[in-house]
Formats: sequence, C-alpha cells, structure tokens
Amino acid sequence: MPPEPAAPRFLAACRREPVDRPPVWMMRQAGRYLPEYREVRGQVGFLELCKTPDLACEVTCQPIRRFGFDAAILFSDILIPVEAMGMPVEFVEDLGPVLDAPIRLRGDLDRLRVPDPEATMPFVPEAVRRIRRALPATPLIGFSGAPLTLAAYMIEGAGSKDFVELKRFLWADPEAARRLLRLVTDTVVLYLEAQVAAGAQAVQLFDTWAGVLAPRDYDELVLPYVTEIVARLRPRGVPIIYFVNGAAPLLERMKRTGADVMGLDWRVDLGEARARLGPDVAVQGNLDPVALHAPPAVIAERTRAVLAAGGGTGHVFNLGHGILPDTPIAGVEAMLAAIRGEASGGAG
Amino acid sequence: MPPEPAAPRFLAACRREPVDRPPVWMMRQAGRYLPEYREVRGQVGFLELCKTPDLACEVTCQPIRRFGFDAAILFSDILIPVEAMGMPVEFVEDLGPVLDAPIRLRGDLDRLRVPDPEATMPFVPEAVRRIRRALPATPLIGFSGAPLTLAAYMIEGAGSKDFVELKRFLWADPEAARRLLRLVTDTVVLYLEAQVAAGAQAVQLFDTWAGVLAPRDYDELVLPYVTEIVARLRPRGVPIIYFVNGAAPLLERMKRTGADVMGLDWRVDLGEARARLGPDVAVQGNLDPVALHAPPAVIAERTRAVLAAGGGTGHVFNLGHGILPDTPIAGVEAMLAAIRGEASGGAG
Repeated sequence: MPPEPAAPRFLAACRREPVDRPPVWMMRQAGRYLPEYREVRGQVGFLELCKTPDLACEVTCQPIRRFGFDAAILFSDILIPVEAMGMPVEFVEDLGPVLDAPIRLRGDLDRLRVPDPEATMPFVPEAVRRIRRALPATPLIGFSGAPLTLAAYMIEGAGSKDFVELKRFLWADPEAARRLLRLVTDTVVLYLEAQVAAGAQAVQLFDTWAGVLAPRDYDELVLPYVTEIVARLRPRGVPIIYFVNGAAPLLERMKRTGADVMGLDWRVDLGEARARLGPDVAVQGNLDPVALHAPPAVIAERTRAVLAAGGGTGHVFNLGHGILPDTPIAGVEAMLAAIRGEASGGAG
Repeated sequence: MPPEPAAPRFLAACRREPVDRPPVWMMRQAGRYLPEYREVRGQVGFLELCKTPDLACEVTCQPIRRFGFDAAILFSDILIPVEAMGMPVEFVEDLGPVLDAPIRLRGDLDRLRVPDPEATMPFVPEAVRRIRRALPATPLIGFSGAPLTLAAYMIEGAGSKDFVELKRFLWADPEAARRLLRLVTDTVVLYLEAQVAAGAQAVQLFDTWAGVLAPRDYDELVLPYVTEIVARLRPRGVPIIYFVNGAAPLLERMKRTGADVMGLDWRVDLGEARARLGPDVAVQGNLDPVALHAPPAVIAERTRAVLAAGGGTGHVFNLGHGILPDTPIAGVEAMLAAIRGEASGGAG
C-alpha cells in the first residue's frame, strides 16, 4: 500500500484548527532505525551528512517516503550553530558530540560570535530549499536547540548525567551566564529566521536539558530567552513548537513562552497536561518511545490512548522523545495503523 | 564546634508535629564525598562493606559524627535483597551493580524466592542493632528499593538509560510482570519488617526508577505494590518515607500510597508540591544536589529558599537526590549553617 498523501493537517493542528485526524511525525524520524538511513551513513560521517544538502535532503525524505508522515523535519544536528559560534564539534561514534574546548570561564566567551547563518552554515538553508522542492506536499519543520540546552553542551563539552559544570558556571557567575545565553539566543533567532526564509513552514525549539533544572532556575535561565525567541520569530508567521524533556513540573511556565505548541515527553499524562495548559495552546506528543518495542496490540492500544488523551483538536501526535536507534520498523507501522484507523500493522 | 546533639525533630517532622526547625539528613550521606568513608573503602570492597555489620555501622556513623545530621540511614545497597532472592550481584568499579543473569523470560522467575531476611541477610538487622547502640540519640532510617525499581535492576541487569528491557518485559507479559512484582513486594515487606524489628525507627522506600514510566504504567505497575507495602508496614508504627526520582507528574498518585512523607527530587518546586499534596502529608527534600558545588553564599540562599518553600512543619530537609561523590565538604557545611541559622559555613 502506498503512503497516504500528506495533508496540511500538521499546520492546521498547530493552529488548533479542525483536522480529520491528528497529524503524526516522530522526533528523530530520519535516523538509525531506518535501514535506508544506515546505508547512507555507511558512506559518510555524521557531520558530513549534516553539511551536504543533497544527502541531508535525501535522509529527510526517507521516512516520508516510507511512512507518509504528516510533517518532515530538517535533518541536522543541534550543535551546528554552536560550531558556527566558534566551537569546533566532533562526533565520536557511540559517544555523541564532543567539544574539545568547552566554556568554563568568563573569558572563554570572548571566543564566541553570533554567526550569520547564510555565511557560516549555508548548507542548512540550502538543504531546506532542496527538501521543499523534493517534498512539495509535506510541511517542513526547521529546528534549533533552545539556549539553555545549547549552553549545556557548550559548558559540559559533551552529554552529561548530572550537569555539574553547567550549573556551577550558571550559579558561580550569573553575569557570564546571561552573556552566554544572550549570545546563544541571538544565534538561535538568526538561525531559525534563515530556515524560515529558505522555506521551513514551522520551527521546533528543542529544550532537551531544561528539565534538569529546578523550576526557579528555569524561570531565570530559560523562560526569558525562549520567550524572546518566540516573540522575535512571531512576525515570520510560522507555528513554533517548544519541546522540553521532563516537562511535567514546567507546563505552566512553558506556556508563558508564547509558543504555539507544547512538545511533551511521555512521563506526563497528556490529558492532565491539556487540563493544566488550557484550550488556547496546542500540544505535541507523547507516546513512550520504548512502546514501539512492545507487541503490536499493545502499541495500538497505547497509541489510541494517547489520541484519546490528546482530544483530537490541537494535538500533533509524536513520540515523547526521539525514536530509539534499535526500534523495529514494525513498531512504527503498528503505531501508524492505529492513528490511521487501520486494522493491522502494515502501513508502508 | 562540636556537632549539635541530635534531637527527635526528624521523627516529629515525619509526623507533622511542631519542630524548632526542620530536621536535615542527606540521601547517600555515608558515601564517597567523605574522606573517612574513602579510607574504609580503600580497605574493603563495596559488597563486603555492606555485609560486615561493624563496618556498615562505622560508615553509617561517620556523617553523624562529622555533621550531626538529624537522622542516620543504614548503610547498605538496594540490591542486597535482590541477591537474597536468588540473583548474584557484582559491583564493578565506576559502573555500579551488575547482575550476571537478568530476568528476561517468564521462566527466569522460577529462580527467585522470597527470602527470610534473618536467614539470608543477617548482617542487615545486625548492622541496625549496632548502629542503634552506637547512635542512641539519632533516629535510624531503614530502607529498601521499591518493587518497580528493584524489578528494573533485575530485568535490565544493570543501570539503564532508556529501560527498553524493563518495559518490554512488563508490556509483553503482564502476568509475569505481576508475578515478579508480587515476589519483590513480599520480599520488601519482610526485609523492612526485619529492619524495624532490629530497631529502625523509620523506613524509606527508594523508587528511583518509577519516574521513567508514563503515569498509566505507574498506576498499574507501581501504585498497587507500594500501597500494599505501606499498609502491611503500618502496624509497625514507624514513619514511611516514599522517594520517587522524577516525582512531579506523580505527586497525587504518590500520596495515594498512604506513605507519611513524600520524598521529592529537585525538579519540582517544593511550594507547588505542598500545595498539590495538601496539608495531611509531610514532604522531604529537595535541594538540587549540584547546588553544593556552588559558592557558599549561593548554597545558603538556595537552602533558605527550600526551607521557606517547605513551610516549616512537616518538612524534612534533604537533597533532591543522593549527594554526588565529588561534592566538597565545605558545600555540606554551608548548607547546614544555613539550616541552623549560623552566619558562616563552619558546621563540623
């Protein structure tokens, strides 16, 4: 069976307009769980893939071709603008991104600049333009890491469990922290504006690490900057999705950013989240990504439960986090069949 | 300055009775951040330390001697009863506990038994008796992992990031999941009863991994078992503390367990948590453990903010998670000085 044609239901749902059914896409949908992605990656390194518009376009299109998702998302890495700010990034297999010279002292900020995206990251808008031509009927989401999340990588120099370096920096020198978050905020705005100018029809801000902060730190170190980004992007007229991993304690605060769609991880009940958020904002989420490892009947039941909790209008169906690299294709198919009201798991 | 004498304020706070100031202890307070602990560990392996009552008693007393905390907690490991159930545990340096033959199939459950604590773990009640003699004026907390958290180790075989094996097991064979959780629940009840019989004056259930579940899974796989444990321990007359890491989405559910004190991680605002929980339950927490790496003035301010949010009565001051191994002693001193209303950081 060929994929169903992409409908504008993704953009409608972001704007809380009526839809025939909630749209669906998956965070990290162009990724290692796809054999066709692994084939491309067998030939080029990760950063080279991000920086080669033809290849970035190709892998962005792969999950749309296979599954007919209701939105595509630019294939890239959240550290691309960090590199453009002046911090070389390396990708170490099985370890993820590593920054050789992380920010640890106030003076380290002197190395950073707010980069012009077209000059320093021309491959990103170019990939956006190619994807739009390749997928004229599928809305394209641009994205960026949010300031605190990018600052976490810049200070830790890699992923972290406890974020001791990040918090130590933020608390020991609040003025330097504000200076860093200001630089990143300006970078993110220009970076997303460039993606929208090139054709991105929506943007998602990934605040993967905002949830490791106490709420008082969120109020001080996250909320003002994300709010500013939303306000500065508003004139561009595209829906803004704001994803936080560990959103439950922060829902009311997230809403104050003014973003159109709140992206939620799986650890919060979607119905309770909608009740707390109120009817004037859309939500995205939030099937536990591990659920795609369950038997098909369990996937179908859990998918329907998320749809029911989402309430139909103003709900973009997604996983509660990125799809895991070892997820079976059949799990994705079972989820899509349940969303599309099909009886069995075959969807691609 | 010698440590202040331990007062019964810990037990009073658990029961929401008036106290002169909130009591304070720290999760993992007998641990690697203490030079005197590292000295003991330089001579014996971790499991040997857990299983030698004299040494377990000694390291339990160390933080009380140095800091005069308002409660001691039995030094042990949450996997001790798992080993007694029939699963050998190894401790790999820098990697933590490893179970050679994790539970992956229904048939693996046949290897498990509900152990008699006095017969299989006699060193635990013996350590409790020695600690009570060594610290007659300081309330002693016994503890156990909660069923889901112990089951997570038993199924994953080690720590995990995504808990794919755990969730796959729970969802693929709900009957086997219930059988496993039943075995663990019975084990935990006997284990905690033995600690109380030996002299433990309160108990804490650590549900470190319950927060990785979606709320619907918590309702099915956690709540009934923890509720049963609380009910079965109730006749013993000791306060029951229930700690969940990632508690924010689960507060109202945690309260339904009937535990006396809700242990909260740092990611939820303590004032908001108290408002949601209501006045008929005590709380424990919830300073970000990383805050102890901040400058002393920041530690003092953040400690006072937690005290203010805790509201005085029915609040046991603690970190929001275990103290990190590389925490400076001076950080703990600054926190204690703020709790005790002293001007500077010297407390030990």
